[in-house]
Amino acid sequence: MAKLENYRKIITQILEKHAQHKPSHGEIEPLLLCDPITDNYLLLDTGWDKTGRVHYVVLHLRIVGEKIWIKSDGTERGIAL
Amino acid sequence: MAKLENYRKIITQILEKHAQHKPSHGEIEPLLLCDPITDNYLLLDTGWDKTGRVHYVVLHLRIVGEKIWIKSDGTERGIAL
Repeated sequence: MAKLENYRKIITQILEKHAQHKPSHGEIEPLLLCDPITDNYLLLDTGWDKTGRVHYVVLHLRIVGEKIWIKSDGTERGIAL
Repeated sequence: MAKLENYRKIITQILEKHAQHKPSHGEIEPLLLCDPITDNYLLLDTGWDKTGRVHYVVLHLRIVGEKIWIKSDGTERGIAL
């Protein structure tokens, strides 16, 4: 369990770090969702930019069987479509 | 606070109900994320179908200022793209 608690702590730190980076374009708010019951951790960008409504999963990590799974990684994408 | 607790309970019930509906196509798992700290509640479909990788926000609800905000609603969409 100590291993899992450590994983949860590390994941939350990573997502919190990413959440500090508010996109410079549009009016976009980073939202952090941490669910230690289902062990899913997600960072969303939501708001508006010149393309319209933004609702984009930046990063989704999940702990399954004492391993961290990257369910979705949009951190390398330059712009929100 | 009783009002907020009631909202959280209702939202969780709605998402749990939707999460019971596993798509009939592909290998898709509904994932529920409830974060009562940031008051964000999200249902994701993740997995694979014939179009490839599926990572789709079915429903995203958030409580802000004692109101429930529908941040994203994909429940009316017939197929996962």
